Amino acid sequence: MSEPGLTSEGLGFEVLARDGDARRGTLTTAHGQVQTPAFMAVGTAGTVKGLLPEQVSETGTEILLGNTYHLMLRPGAERVAHLGGLHRFMNWPRPILTDSGGFQVMSLGELCTITERGVAFKSHLDGAAYDLTPERSVEIQHLLDANITMVLDECTPYPADLPTARTSMERSMRWAARCKEAFIPRAGYGLFGIVQGSIYPEQRLASAASLREIGFDGYAIGGLAVGEGQQLMFDMLEVTCPALPEARPRYLMGVGKPADLVGAVARGVDMFDCVLPTRSGRTGQAFTHFGSLNIRNARHKDDPRPLDPECGCPTCRDFSRAYLHHLVKAEEMLGPILLTRHNLHYYQSLMGDLRQAIEAGRLQDFAAQFALDQARGDIPPV
Amino acid sequence: MSEPGLTSEGLGFEVLARDGDARRGTLTTAHGQVQTPAFMAVGTAGTVKGLLPEQVSETGTEILLGNTYHLMLRPGAERVAHLGGLHRFMNWPRPILTDSGGFQVMSLGELCTITERGVAFKSHLDGAAYDLTPERSVEIQHLLDANITMVLDECTPYPADLPTARTSMERSMRWAARCKEAFIPRAGYGLFGIVQGSIYPEQRLASAASLREIGFDGYAIGGLAVGEGQQLMFDMLEVTCPALPEARPRYLMGVGKPADLVGAVARGVDMFDCVLPTRSGRTGQAFTHFGSLNIRNARHKDDPRPLDPECGCPTCRDFSRAYLHHLVKAEEMLGPILLTRHNLHYYQSLMGDLRQAIEAGRLQDFAAQFALDQARGDIPPV
Repeated sequence: MSEPGLTSEGLGFEVLARDGDARRGTLTTAHGQVQTPAFMAVGTAGTVKGLLPEQVSETGTEILLGNTYHLMLRPGAERVAHLGGLHRFMNWPRPILTDSGGFQVMSLGELCTITERGVAFKSHLDGAAYDLTPERSVEIQHLLDANITMVLDECTPYPADLPTARTSMERSMRWAARCKEAFIPRAGYGLFGIVQGSIYPEQRLASAASLREIGFDGYAIGGLAVGEGQQLMFDMLEVTCPALPEARPRYLMGVGKPADLVGAVARGVDMFDCVLPTRSGRTGQAFTHFGSLNIRNARHKDDPRPLDPECGCPTCRDFSRAYLHHLVKAEEMLGPILLTRHNLHYYQSLMGDLRQAIEAGRLQDFAAQFALDQARGDIPPV
Repeated sequence: MSEPGLTSEGLGFEVLARDGDARRGTLTTAHGQVQTPAFMAVGTAGTVKGLLPEQVSETGTEILLGNTYHLMLRPGAERVAHLGGLHRFMNWPRPILTDSGGFQVMSLGELCTITERGVAFKSHLDGAAYDLTPERSVEIQHLLDANITMVLDECTPYPADLPTARTSMERSMRWAARCKEAFIPRAGYGLFGIVQGSIYPEQRLASAASLREIGFDGYAIGGLAVGEGQQLMFDMLEVTCPALPEARPRYLMGVGKPADLVGAVARGVDMFDCVLPTRSGRTGQAFTHFGSLNIRNARHKDDPRPLDPECGCPTCRDFSRAYLHHLVKAEEMLGPILLTRHNLHYYQSLMGDLRQAIEAGRLQDFAAQFALDQARGDIPPV
């Protein structure tokens, strides 16, 4: 379990190169290293939907996100611990980050009550009552054996007026301190705080200062990509990133579209997670070097060409648009499988391109070319 | 496209060893060889549900069955031909057998009308009207580029009285002759006739004689496993197999459970197809060396052991019963994927064992041990 770069406690993080505000780094955990900027594939309930672990790995994915809410309900955190932890349970020997469960619990609406103590909610599966406190969230993530534990925070609704945003953020900071208390440090494992504050720069700065005061292995930026639009999200990153410690990784939660990733990396973000490549794959949407397309569209039904002629993934190597169109129309499982694999591969290849561009000091050129390519649109019909 | 053992026309078939009535052989097609006795995985609509072609191949599967009915409706035989044939369309470069479409069309009930000319039916997808004649069925299978084309036959309902069975069988024989007329011979491609006659030995013998008179590359036995029970099915094989040419492969259609395969091989059958391993995999049923089990059962939820401790498949190597139980309960796609992969692997490993047993002249011993193992039942709970 010992990795080069690991100290006796926490996660290793080394910034290898900089280009403007962008950073190229390496995150070291008890389950191996992650090259940053990194995109984490979402494996909600102990599986990246439709893919075997080795297929996830083949896309270039080095770290998965697991969802505490889903896993605590089924199969249950204690059961996963008894079975050797989430890595062994799902046969993913590489790093895992888990969320706190808060986001999904607070999306339950009437089934959920938030107090200073934490969140009480009823399971969407069977109505059973649960308590999710900062302490229990951390305990669950320990039981799952997450390499990166996220603090429980209150997901400030958007839009929120300033007093609401401040009250909510301040509660999240108190919860963050309780999570830090509850967290048991180990080598190769770490705890991330989460900056809140809605779209108010001074609240974001106050939140970042509170978290630095508590001290975390990494710093996430939460409460964005909730409807505020890309420009406002980028504005918040420009405020927040410089207020976070240089030596620690920064994680923009739940983001995003390919262009969001490019812009956020340029503003100093090191880690991302998003359901977009996997969920879109299940509805027929594919991300390509020329923007996105939906394979359900009838114009693909006779097209012998790959989804993305510039992509090197096994889906693009082995299968035509016509075949993928057929699979999706026929509701065959292989359609979502092949599209998910392609989309994850596309996302990871974009992250690889971004890492290379930072190393070469040409991120600005890369971002400009990326925007041109995406605007070009899909290849013309045969 | 040239394979050793291929003559200028038809399929190569060599019987390498015999043990009682059982045969160990090699079938040679334009897309490679198949070791017999062989189990064909069912790839209804141009995909073995949930598996990539290389995963199918890794189970030991050497030949797939495609369904003419499904493929003619969607994506359409002409479209598949335009895209280079079914092998290229689905990226399966190995042998393919297609059924005639008759079985599924005649299962449509009121949507289907049978006349001497053929079958008129309405698509279950959009109600569009189609004609399926013996000539069109063969044409479709040519367009799909099937290595083995099946004659269109009338699927005699079960039970059927003797006059009904005879009338139906005789029409099937006239259709078989029309299929032979319509079939365009090529090296590495062949046409199989289908013996009908319900459970009447003299009708089975008359059907076999008619087919031999016409002359086919292989001989299928149809209209069994339709509710008559295993013993009556075995009785019909004992009547029919000796009436078929020694030098040509014999294919028992739509069969079956593991014990059916063992008994049919012992009676001289060379080829099988069945949806059981794939369809059961999607409902949580697993076939093992100790009989079958359903992974949905709550007794598996904490079990760290593999599905089948005697199985060498990747599912049994990498995942616990507890994990598979979780996936199936959570309705995750990976559950059906992993179970289908295991079940196909189990079936193919059984076929491999049968081939070895025939070569070693110990099929009877193997069958006796197999029956004992299956009767043992699942391993006791932890």
